[in-house]
Amino acid sequence: MTAPPPAIVLVRPQLAENIGKAARAMLNFGLTDLRLVSPRDGWPNPAAGPAASGADIVLERARLFDSVADAVADCAHVYATTVRKRGVTKPVVRPDEAAIAVRAETGGSAFLFGPERSGLETDDVAVARTILTVPINPEFGSLNLAQAVILVAYEWSKGETLKQPPAVEIDPPAPQIELDGMIDQLDGMLQATGYFYPPDRTPVTRRTLRTLLTKPGWNSQEVRTLRGVLSTLARPRPR
Amino acid sequence: MTAPPPAIVLVRPQLAENIGKAARAMLNFGLTDLRLVSPRDGWPNPAAGPAASGADIVLERARLFDSVADAVADCAHVYATTVRKRGVTKPVVRPDEAAIAVRAETGGSAFLFGPERSGLETDDVAVARTILTVPINPEFGSLNLAQAVILVAYEWSKGETLKQPPAVEIDPPAPQIELDGMIDQLDGMLQATGYFYPPDRTPVTRRTLRTLLTKPGWNSQEVRTLRGVLSTLARPRPR
Repeated sequence: MTAPPPAIVLVRPQLAENIGKAARAMLNFGLTDLRLVSPRDGWPNPAAGPAASGADIVLERARLFDSVADAVADCAHVYATTVRKRGVTKPVVRPDEAAIAVRAETGGSAFLFGPERSGLETDDVAVARTILTVPINPEFGSLNLAQAVILVAYEWSKGETLKQPPAVEIDPPAPQIELDGMIDQLDGMLQATGYFYPPDRTPVTRRTLRTLLTKPGWNSQEVRTLRGVLSTLARPRPR
Repeated sequence: MTAPPPAIVLVRPQLAENIGKAARAMLNFGLTDLRLVSPRDGWPNPAAGPAASGADIVLERARLFDSVADAVADCAHVYATTVRKRGVTKPVVRPDEAAIAVRAETGGSAFLFGPERSGLETDDVAVARTILTVPINPEFGSLNLAQAVILVAYEWSKGETLKQPPAVEIDPPAPQIELDGMIDQLDGMLQATGYFYPPDRTPVTRRTLRTLLTKPGWNSQEVRTLRGVLSTLARPRPR
């Protein structure tokens, strides 16, 4: 049994636009369980849709509650997101730690986010067992609601295997024999132009060139392209 | 010696409001080096300030450039942030991996972010050695500019508290301006010999060459050596 994706609980959010932005942030990282506690301007609210930029399904499924306690009634693990520490002695975790905990434990989890201007009240925090704090520039703490939501959602999504970036097919380095062919070609051209001088420095110079041409790990196609470049340069210049 | 904090490069951003939001996201996590390439609505722009919510210092210090190449001329490591895969075969990393790499290597780093609507062009991506992709819900990829910036800045900030051991003494890749100088030199030589034919293939050919010459991450000494090789090859052959 794996833990369900966590719920995002917006407590008394002020602007419907920010509810939309939070929905967008959630869906970007695979979260869909949005819960609203007493939004200031009511719910549903037409200002939320445009800000959600297509995350309509999150808004449509959003559930409305009268209290924080009701909103998290079915959750086993409640995290209160705050910037400043309150006078409450509870464990404080970062988003990455919370994401790991949410997956490791059984039972549903919820993250509480307070109103834009003031943040969560002490009574809201009291509902939570754990404080979630985003480590932020101490001289400029100005994380907005959607940004706080996206960091939590982003960290949670790291555990989803399907969210891995697609593996890119990178061609392996060309076999040595192909690289050697290119180096020999260049070497011949350089000999013809008197590059290797004085003669007693030649072994060191050759080694230097080999080292820097080996470093790239060019694939076969790239080596062919470079050999074409060299062949072109070896031709007599057009007048 | 530790690597400097990375630069955030907004390439042709459309809305000044989003520049402000990106500045706010940066400062939240301790980044201040903002670079703007040809913002659509000009710069400075009064619409940026309110959106920055107090991150004025980032906006005031922001530097304006005409091209991506100019913006990253002093950077040794350039990451191109894209959602979709392009036809370019470069290493792809996640923000957490990029954050670790930026700290582990020597030399400055830059993260490129494209215009809001369209993202980075292929030519922008060609400047970078590495692709940065945020692993996102494959059925709803809708990350906005400031959100992409905040995830990169957030991941970078995680390493700030941990004092990394001093980096190994490996010469960093040459600044982009040195690499560009070498590419220009080769390009001029190839033009003189009629390499770029037919003409309508020239942009693709140029991009291919740039990609494979960017891949090695040659340091300044290596670039100088290669420029010496090119200069030698450009000389008339002894008879």
